[in-house]
Amino acid sequence: MRATDVIMKKRGIKGQDLEPLSKEEIQFLVDGYVKGEIPEYQISAFLMAVYFNGMNFEETAALTEVMLHSGEVMDLSTLEGPFIDKHSTGGVGDKLSLPLAPIVAACGIQVPMMSGRALGHTGGTLDKLDSIRGFRTNLNNDEFRDIIKNTGFAMTGQTKQIVPADRLMYALRDVTATVESIPLITASILSKKIAEGSEALVFDVKCGKGAFMKSLEDAEALAVSLVETAKAMGKKASALITNMSEPLGFTVGNFLEIEETIDILQGEGPKDTTDLTISLAAEMLILGGKAKNTEEGEALAKEAVKSGKALELFMNNVKLQGGDPKELMLQYKKRRSEFVEELKAEQDGFISNIDAFAVGMAGVNLGVGRNKTSDSVCAEAGCELLKKSGDKVNKGETIMRVYAKDSQSLVPAMKLLKEAVQYSDKAPAKQELIFKVIR
Amino acid sequence: MRATDVIMKKRGIKGQDLEPLSKEEIQFLVDGYVKGEIPEYQISAFLMAVYFNGMNFEETAALTEVMLHSGEVMDLSTLEGPFIDKHSTGGVGDKLSLPLAPIVAACGIQVPMMSGRALGHTGGTLDKLDSIRGFRTNLNNDEFRDIIKNTGFAMTGQTKQIVPADRLMYALRDVTATVESIPLITASILSKKIAEGSEALVFDVKCGKGAFMKSLEDAEALAVSLVETAKAMGKKASALITNMSEPLGFTVGNFLEIEETIDILQGEGPKDTTDLTISLAAEMLILGGKAKNTEEGEALAKEAVKSGKALELFMNNVKLQGGDPKELMLQYKKRRSEFVEELKAEQDGFISNIDAFAVGMAGVNLGVGRNKTSDSVCAEAGCELLKKSGDKVNKGETIMRVYAKDSQSLVPAMKLLKEAVQYSDKAPAKQELIFKVIR
Repeated sequence: MRATDVIMKKRGIKGQDLEPLSKEEIQFLVDGYVKGEIPEYQISAFLMAVYFNGMNFEETAALTEVMLHSGEVMDLSTLEGPFIDKHSTGGVGDKLSLPLAPIVAACGIQVPMMSGRALGHTGGTLDKLDSIRGFRTNLNNDEFRDIIKNTGFAMTGQTKQIVPADRLMYALRDVTATVESIPLITASILSKKIAEGSEALVFDVKCGKGAFMKSLEDAEALAVSLVETAKAMGKKASALITNMSEPLGFTVGNFLEIEETIDILQGEGPKDTTDLTISLAAEMLILGGKAKNTEEGEALAKEAVKSGKALELFMNNVKLQGGDPKELMLQYKKRRSEFVEELKAEQDGFISNIDAFAVGMAGVNLGVGRNKTSDSVCAEAGCELLKKSGDKVNKGETIMRVYAKDSQSLVPAMKLLKEAVQYSDKAPAKQELIFKVIR
Repeated sequence: MRATDVIMKKRGIKGQDLEPLSKEEIQFLVDGYVKGEIPEYQISAFLMAVYFNGMNFEETAALTEVMLHSGEVMDLSTLEGPFIDKHSTGGVGDKLSLPLAPIVAACGIQVPMMSGRALGHTGGTLDKLDSIRGFRTNLNNDEFRDIIKNTGFAMTGQTKQIVPADRLMYALRDVTATVESIPLITASILSKKIAEGSEALVFDVKCGKGAFMKSLEDAEALAVSLVETAKAMGKKASALITNMSEPLGFTVGNFLEIEETIDILQGEGPKDTTDLTISLAAEMLILGGKAKNTEEGEALAKEAVKSGKALELFMNNVKLQGGDPKELMLQYKKRRSEFVEELKAEQDGFISNIDAFAVGMAGVNLGVGRNKTSDSVCAEAGCELLKKSGDKVNKGETIMRVYAKDSQSLVPAMKLLKEAVQYSDKAPAKQELIFKVIR
């Protein structure tokens, strides 16, 4: 087998039908790349050919499988499942993983959650967890298994042993304009999620200004690809396509979002965040055989909150992962950056939208997120949203309270945030939360 | 400027119109690549994006210009023009450059001809010239200019100083399945032809089984791209799209084709080869202002043969480039490989075609050509075609006399050649020689 021939097959030959690659061909390229036997210039040409010609679900499943086995796959055989995780394509104010894990754990689902960090305008679950003093997101495999055994979920970062092919390929895609390819995105997401030990997966595919997928068409294509590829690999899966025009909930930040997590687990969270968490929980409960349908799943999830079981599991987890629940509750709604400014309404009227992308980019300035992976983040930075779309405001009323890592960074952030707020004279139509469910 | 952004611009962004690259962007990539500042993996991704999205003539001209100036451009300012060359996209039995140069030189055109070697099924002008004992195809710039001054043409290989960007890019395209791209082919051909000092160019774009371009549609696209890009660079240009279903003339080989060159220059060449040489000469004479139209150009070219002037210039050139015209004429039609076999007609009837590609591949076996650039070739290897399409044959009659570098290589070659001959009961339609002229 020659790499050039595999690239040419994916590129296609004029006048001939495009033929899908075999698993052997995909394995030859990916394994050869990881071993250093196939040079980067052939892989990048291949990735560009995939960008243009795509891959069918069988090819994507083969790619995922080969990437998955480029590294360690978490062995959870000493525990009892079902092991189910949720993956979000990334958004602004998207803290849903944090309340979701204890809620479904309270209902008997085991969640082996490996998360990522903030990058660009999107936040990162690990950065939020790291804002809890003492909380460790670098668990070793034994700790990861022990904590799942104790609380039904554990939240950690990926080890270097997990899917090295994805780290290599993602770095190459990033510099060769081949990131935006649905089969490549699918294989990247799925290989990592399956490597953490999940047997079934729920995908929260974000759609809108603050999402990677701006159009419903693109979001749906990704959702279908994720679900169908997971199925082709023998995993159960479903996806919600959800709105990411406006930040989720009332907070965008690291510690701020931990607080909102506690609010949700206390049954006092914002409606959008709570509803979406419950919907995702219901999907996970259906896949795990704990609920027959959405109604039953939602009822179970709500009960896990109402009973206090989910909050209890969350606090147990905080303790097991190195944090101090008492200290956490002492800091709750008190731990704030001293560099603070308020964003006031510029006019009377209704807020029609608060642009999630602009808020996310302001977050990078404030210290919530990062431009490049080596940047550090600030636990206390972020925005509290006192008003959201649909709310009536008077000129001068406070819309956001904005916290920064330092005083200088407030200036560019306030400019972005000011532009992020859109007004209308009439009450705007209510924003949909879930656009579509793919099963 | 970032390489990734240029690649992305060529790749295109979903939902946005594709924008052509600026000359600065193309220069940034190519110069950066030649200097080693931009890695191969970015260039190969770019080349694949060009494969899919193409380039308009302005972009192709900019690419050609940048590649051209990556190295030395031949300075012919001490000589008097017009300097015009012909380029063929490569065929089987295609010795036209050899008689063409002295014919147009006899009419006052200066031909600064830098040629290539055989590769794959196609022959190479340099290999044919090298079969003349003592003939040097590694002239330095002064020798090249001196010989043009003397005989009106010189025939040599490209120096390493000419278009290094093309050598780098071609090697990368070869291993990344990005060879078959019309703008990339155009820039590769044009940059080298302009670097040799040509002011105007005639392209012989081969079309058919034995050509790089199998369909008339593809051949025409390449011909138009070559002519329009040359014009965009301020050069005069025209192209003939010519038939390469069957080998040209009665010989395929190295020394065998030198002999046929002498036949053409003596006015005794095969009709197809002679006619096409005269047509190409007429195009060059028109571009050089020596003829008003095809008729006038053809008359001048024929006269250059009839008068013996073209043959005289050819022999003078042989002498100046290190060969011995007397020795050459002593070897003429006598210098043959001892490893010889005849291909006999398998049936009574007409020959409908002799597949040029199969003959070319048999030539690789025989020692005419090479599979990889490091292979060596045999001067005496090749085929003499005693019959061609349209000829009536009786079973057992000799169709070809086949000469090999050694006895073993005759076996696979004879198998290919046997399969190359197609028969019909009725006389086949005469094959067209020139499909189209692009000016």
